[in-house]
Amino acid sequence: MLEKTVRMNSLFDFYQPLLTNKQRLYLERYYLDDFSLGEISEEFNVSRQAVYDNIRRTEAMLEEYEKKLGLYKKYQERLALFEQLKTLVPDDNRKTQLLELIDTLEKLEEEGVS
Amino acid sequence: MLEKTVRMNSLFDFYQPLLTNKQRLYLERYYLDDFSLGEISEEFNVSRQAVYDNIRRTEAMLEEYEKKLGLYKKYQERLALFEQLKTLVPDDNRKTQLLELIDTLEKLEEEGVS
Repeated sequence: MLEKTVRMNSLFDFYQPLLTNKQRLYLERYYLDDFSLGEISEEFNVSRQAVYDNIRRTEAMLEEYEKKLGLYKKYQERLALFEQLKTLVPDDNRKTQLLELIDTLEKLEEEGVS
Repeated sequence: MLEKTVRMNSLFDFYQPLLTNKQRLYLERYYLDDFSLGEISEEFNVSRQAVYDNIRRTEAMLEEYEKKLGLYKKYQERLALFEQLKTLVPDDNRKTQLLELIDTLEKLEEEGVS
């Protein structure tokens, strides 16, 4: 379950702009805030089953977006490459500039991520 | 018009996995193959107006995806940063490894692009 939570949180970071408000809210409560289905159904005054179905559909959508665009996978690959880059930065007058560039690249990765 | 064609081609590269087959086909004919609306309507045996409406809707979808995910904008920003990185690669025993890493990063950018 923990593994799934981590994955859903990550996919949510990348694809949440593509979700509807309701999908976003339910998923936030369930995965980020760790609410139970019962608690979410009470908060939004809908059946537990409706919340369950909505969350399952949203999870499937997130996996489908990842299958099509692979943003999370590429993000992980880039971060690993940036780490390798850092180990190769020479200790000379280029050091500051190079580290700043890598830092800018890393920040660009986080931009789309909440 | 040329500017719009370039932009639509670029957005298409990033977001085409999210389009339906019909949207993809019409847009390919119109922007990549430079067919006229009349030629597309003949090929698919639909009205010129239907093709026009479909293409306009797809263009709006592509712009909406870019507004939400910004993949094309980030792609351009990353490519510029990779160019800057290359100018700072030292001419010593790190050179080959560093250039290979930057090359891998650049190839990763092209992966999602047709």
